[in-house]
Amino acid sequence: MASSAAAAAQAATPLLKDELDIVIPTIRNLDFLEMWRPFFQPYHLIIVQDGDPKKTIRVPEGFDYELYNRDDINRILGPRASCISFKDSACRCFGYMVSKKKYIYTIDDDCFVAKDPSGKDINALEQHIKNLLSPSTPYFFNTLYDPYRDGADFVRGYPFSLREGAPTAVSHGLWLNVPDYDAPTQLVKPLERNSRYVDAVMTIPKGTLFPMCGMNLAFDRDLIGPAMYFGLMGDGQPIGRYDDMWAGWCTKVITDHLGLGVKTGLPYIWHSKASNPFVNLKKEYNGIFWQEELIPFFQSASLPKEADTVQKCYLELAKQVRAKLGKVDGYFNKLADSMVTWIEAWDQLNPPKGAVATANGTAKSK
Amino acid sequence: MASSAAAAAQAATPLLKDELDIVIPTIRNLDFLEMWRPFFQPYHLIIVQDGDPKKTIRVPEGFDYELYNRDDINRILGPRASCISFKDSACRCFGYMVSKKKYIYTIDDDCFVAKDPSGKDINALEQHIKNLLSPSTPYFFNTLYDPYRDGADFVRGYPFSLREGAPTAVSHGLWLNVPDYDAPTQLVKPLERNSRYVDAVMTIPKGTLFPMCGMNLAFDRDLIGPAMYFGLMGDGQPIGRYDDMWAGWCTKVITDHLGLGVKTGLPYIWHSKASNPFVNLKKEYNGIFWQEELIPFFQSASLPKEADTVQKCYLELAKQVRAKLGKVDGYFNKLADSMVTWIEAWDQLNPPKGAVATANGTAKSK
Repeated sequence: MASSAAAAAQAATPLLKDELDIVIPTIRNLDFLEMWRPFFQPYHLIIVQDGDPKKTIRVPEGFDYELYNRDDINRILGPRASCISFKDSACRCFGYMVSKKKYIYTIDDDCFVAKDPSGKDINALEQHIKNLLSPSTPYFFNTLYDPYRDGADFVRGYPFSLREGAPTAVSHGLWLNVPDYDAPTQLVKPLERNSRYVDAVMTIPKGTLFPMCGMNLAFDRDLIGPAMYFGLMGDGQPIGRYDDMWAGWCTKVITDHLGLGVKTGLPYIWHSKASNPFVNLKKEYNGIFWQEELIPFFQSASLPKEADTVQKCYLELAKQVRAKLGKVDGYFNKLADSMVTWIEAWDQLNPPKGAVATANGTAKSK
Repeated sequence: MASSAAAAAQAATPLLKDELDIVIPTIRNLDFLEMWRPFFQPYHLIIVQDGDPKKTIRVPEGFDYELYNRDDINRILGPRASCISFKDSACRCFGYMVSKKKYIYTIDDDCFVAKDPSGKDINALEQHIKNLLSPSTPYFFNTLYDPYRDGADFVRGYPFSLREGAPTAVSHGLWLNVPDYDAPTQLVKPLERNSRYVDAVMTIPKGTLFPMCGMNLAFDRDLIGPAMYFGLMGDGQPIGRYDDMWAGWCTKVITDHLGLGVKTGLPYIWHSKASNPFVNLKKEYNGIFWQEELIPFFQSASLPKEADTVQKCYLELAKQVRAKLGKVDGYFNKLADSMVTWIEAWDQLNPPKGAVATANGTAKSK
């Protein structure tokens, strides 16, 4: 089982060329792509330009891409564009929505190719694809980590009935060099760098929440796409830097409910520069307080049996956000509204198969 | 917080010399200790001799040890000796009971010193002590693994209220070379060897069960000792090779209930030889079936608030084993009885502080 799954993952790797989009939010020229050329050039890029739409973003020659700026987002989504953050990399989730592929890989434009301990360039995308194509093990912990990797398996005492695993919806990759710390930790440890290469992929167990970082993240859009909403951050909002966290908590509650798996660990990328901790503190300030209420909320959130699609789960969660977090701060009522708008916009751009596109539907222009 | 905890762990390492016993179950001469001499010689050993008590076990010169054979166990525990397995390494738990130290490290006699990727001998005991002396993080997953290690911390999105962690009760180490596989996997993959050194320690999240292997295991006897019963295996019993698993499932339910942590990962030992898969299959046969009922049982086990000591938790669990697993097989009624006997024997050898030893109490002879 384990070895055949691993073999299938390897054999399938080149096939995903036409099934995966790379989503990059940015405000600058994408020179960082030069370093990724050997790995990314075969794939299609969706660039979500943040900030001033009049600015021109330079994309290195030879890449196949589509680019959306704020004007495009407003035009395509109309009033529903309100759910897409502005002046915050949370805008990347527009790229998830506009994609028509089964898989998404998203990466920040300050992330470069890392090296493994042997000095070899790490093909992050290939590892993500392997992670997504082999099952997860959310119901029981395997002490030798991912049992589907070459040279590993389920250890003694792992129940045989659980060895088929669960479909993997999310592959969360990590960062060498600048670790993804919050502002207080950045302030306290300005020089800390991550140099520990941990050669492992593992499943986050069912019922356990984790801090999902959007810097180096892949997911199966068909399985979990509509839950990957990065919330309302940035311009006009009282919070930033919790976009990916919000998406991660919603996603984990929904994958747990739907019997899907979330993996973390390999691959590493090289995160080049720490963002300004003072600016970050301003963005995070409210989140640091609110989070103390959010975590118990998500830990105890429970979805009804009838919620059997990601959309239904997400709308139910929006309802619970309004009912239980609205009293923490009025922001969460606005966020709950946006969660509903997000699903409407998702369905607008991704009508159920067989449905006829309506006047304001499938407005995507390439 | 993280860095001061790490510093405390390092400073305290040599101090544990008088606070830790190494427990070794064996049927043979302990020549394997030669390789461990630089690391084990400062510590006291408790050797639990399995099988024929007339056989003499040779212990290399210079080690400080006490040795118990079956005659000793029978003499010390009287009729309660029935709870200690015979002709099975599960007998090791007698050593946990007879120890008077705060910490236990237990290791199999076919386990040798492993090397880290730089070629340096791994001081397994030192790593276990570091694991035990720094907190665990059972309530939320940290994607950069143990946040208390040097060079690591809590990542963005990790709730600040949870950064104190929980006291660590168990440190579960791993194995290079021969992995701890069950008989079916051994039969299918006779040549598989574990050569992947994963440089990580992590907490098993609350609510998640794992397969605890007794080959390379350390724990805080004061925090969790009475839960470390390795069950009834071997001679006269319908099952073997589930001793550590049983202890692990009971322990995890109890640590979760009491707010304690369980870590797994580093350190590695070098596991030299695979046991015979045909013999193993005979031992595991019943367990493979029963386990499918045991896991749901432990996953749904819940302990009442009044169970505020390990002993009370364990006796409650024994009651639930009888009520719910007795119908799986009569063996579990016997096991439930033994769980109660084990606690009686534990309290006999470890009377509550301040209690006066009774006629049949504190009968330990050294």
